[in-house]
Amino acid sequence: MNKPVRVGMVGAGQLARMTQQAAIDLGIELVVLAKSPEDPAVLAGAKAIFGDDQDVGSLFELAENCDVVTFDHELVPNEAIRALEDSSFRVYPSSQSFMYSQDKLYARMKFKEAGFPIPDFAAVGSDQIGDVNSFAGVTFRPLVLKSRSGGYDGRGVWVVKEVSELRELFSSLAVGKRAGDVAGKVKESFGDRERFLAENAAVEFIVEEYIDIAKEIAILGVRGQNGEFLTYAPIETVQRGGICNELFMPADISPETATRAKELAAKIAEHIEVVGLVAIEMFIDASGEILINELALRPHNSGHATIEAAYTSQFQNHLRAVLDWPLGSVEMKVPWAAMANILGGQGQTDPRTQICQISDFPSASIHLYAKKPVPGRKLGHVTVVGGEKDLLLSKARRCAGVLSGE
Amino acid sequence: MNKPVRVGMVGAGQLARMTQQAAIDLGIELVVLAKSPEDPAVLAGAKAIFGDDQDVGSLFELAENCDVVTFDHELVPNEAIRALEDSSFRVYPSSQSFMYSQDKLYARMKFKEAGFPIPDFAAVGSDQIGDVNSFAGVTFRPLVLKSRSGGYDGRGVWVVKEVSELRELFSSLAVGKRAGDVAGKVKESFGDRERFLAENAAVEFIVEEYIDIAKEIAILGVRGQNGEFLTYAPIETVQRGGICNELFMPADISPETATRAKELAAKIAEHIEVVGLVAIEMFIDASGEILINELALRPHNSGHATIEAAYTSQFQNHLRAVLDWPLGSVEMKVPWAAMANILGGQGQTDPRTQICQISDFPSASIHLYAKKPVPGRKLGHVTVVGGEKDLLLSKARRCAGVLSGE
Repeated sequence: MNKPVRVGMVGAGQLARMTQQAAIDLGIELVVLAKSPEDPAVLAGAKAIFGDDQDVGSLFELAENCDVVTFDHELVPNEAIRALEDSSFRVYPSSQSFMYSQDKLYARMKFKEAGFPIPDFAAVGSDQIGDVNSFAGVTFRPLVLKSRSGGYDGRGVWVVKEVSELRELFSSLAVGKRAGDVAGKVKESFGDRERFLAENAAVEFIVEEYIDIAKEIAILGVRGQNGEFLTYAPIETVQRGGICNELFMPADISPETATRAKELAAKIAEHIEVVGLVAIEMFIDASGEILINELALRPHNSGHATIEAAYTSQFQNHLRAVLDWPLGSVEMKVPWAAMANILGGQGQTDPRTQICQISDFPSASIHLYAKKPVPGRKLGHVTVVGGEKDLLLSKARRCAGVLSGE
Repeated sequence: MNKPVRVGMVGAGQLARMTQQAAIDLGIELVVLAKSPEDPAVLAGAKAIFGDDQDVGSLFELAENCDVVTFDHELVPNEAIRALEDSSFRVYPSSQSFMYSQDKLYARMKFKEAGFPIPDFAAVGSDQIGDVNSFAGVTFRPLVLKSRSGGYDGRGVWVVKEVSELRELFSSLAVGKRAGDVAGKVKESFGDRERFLAENAAVEFIVEEYIDIAKEIAILGVRGQNGEFLTYAPIETVQRGGICNELFMPADISPETATRAKELAAKIAEHIEVVGLVAIEMFIDASGEILINELALRPHNSGHATIEAAYTSQFQNHLRAVLDWPLGSVEMKVPWAAMANILGGQGQTDPRTQICQISDFPSASIHLYAKKPVPGRKLGHVTVVGGEKDLLLSKARRCAGVLSGE
């Protein structure tokens, strides 16, 4: 080996931090495009290039120093990723795949074309209130308004129950212009994606039917460059305030539903030709129907328990996939796993000062992100695995509570 | 938190590298005293002070930059550790505890006094051949000659089956003078340890009876600053050429033997007042008797499978103990685990170039140390866990073989 394998990761948050731990096992050098020396992955010892993930120059600097480029978040301009690809850098997932997690309108329209089960939806153009009203119909029904792009952790999603809420909502929204920005930079040689973006440049929101959700699950899978696709056990996610703060796996769903969800995930992964991790959030409605909610094309908060619960963690499998190495087993090595996020509390307690308080939770696996404590911010997570399902989630939740200073 | 907790570790090899991964989980900064930027822990992103672990100045520089000092190896002068303690730095294990792993004569004599089961032994003074012969008795019996200090991984241990081998052996030995060096530096105010060292300054070797070993096990435990002591499941070690290259856990011994071994370990840990990890290698002879072999007061090669197999790894528990934090559970979360070292082969293949070859072993957990491939050198290890004991060790061995380029 002349030099070690170097993986470049755009972003240096907690996902990159845990990817750094996985990279150490594989003898890989992880190089992150970071904003600050205080970013979680930089504090964990990943090599860093400091720059702006919105800037093509920074992305090129990263790519030039690495064998392959990947991402710890999706908030990177799609056309910048295309520029890397046009210069023959290896980038996974590709800009084409990334469209499905960056642009909700694109994903919904393509999934509708492909016949995948999704909620009813419509684009909201420049006549915002008119477009929503015409989607809602004569008798206004509860709806979900979503930013077309840029949303995460519950940001960019609004439930609208009364028509009267609409005007206030639209006037209060700090409008992102993200999709419009991207569309404004497309090349002269319009391809399919460019045409789509140009035609929908005015669309900043989509509106969807409000689903009466019985359960939310995530199917986490990893797809190799040869098309091999493996799925972890279905994960049941517990959303509070739009953030996935708690989960357990395997999800409490019937084997038949699990099989349908995994088969759907495989079709989606194939359709979008993802390379690396993909997390597909799904709704199960009251009638048992599965509907695709959103996609993340990277290691995902819902998959943290794979570190302790599966033979190969989501972080290691993402690295293996983007490097075209054999994928690791996604099977669980323990019967059950639960995870709870450690969220910043009002007292802004640093979880690192609380570890001395966790003697009631000797079997909990603690992961701290070394972030400044801000109320509501994800500062870490706790995973508890074992053979008895019932107590795991409450243990994880209580331990996370102690660490957040509650 | 004004500043993150910083743990200083003397040494930057693979044990420090894996401690760095554990430190990331706990939001700790690990600072290693390293020889080179190519040391495994430095490549893993631990902060580094470059210096000489034999030099008091380097050790002080490390201590001044950290909240507590610990070690990834024992080859540090005991009096240098005492100097840190005399300056009120927190050092775990203490210099007093460390005597038991640094000085085999001291350990044997103290354990004999305490009534712990050990092989028959004698100090070999300046009349080397005479001393060995008088220990062997009129009819020369097979013996084991050991360097009093400085040996590891099978270095410093010689089996002597015939009296005729003795002269050649002693003349061929590059004599270490390690124990003598230490004794030469003792202070005027002789304490118990200093008196022992001065009285035995001429002793470079000990000689022991040759034990007909039925099984070798290691009891790995962690002791907190409050005296709490927890032991992992007994580990069965498979020595080849003096190196522990393969292991599985729990060891294939009777519950009664396991209990005796754990109780003995608890007594030893209490006796030596260790803080942190302790690995106690034990022989089980043909009659089922347990004899103490050697101690390591740090994370140990025999404990690597705890990363995947136990709720808390040896690396994390070592950090928790030296920081006076609650210890994590040492219970196994899977039924069985096996580990095989990846040793450098004659072709000097770098395991990092071989990961593309391991598709037959999707459930194997790979740990690469990023070391230059030298024949016989430990370059990494493979752990396989699961519910079926029989195939685990052969899977780990075969995967390690592929990675070493065999």
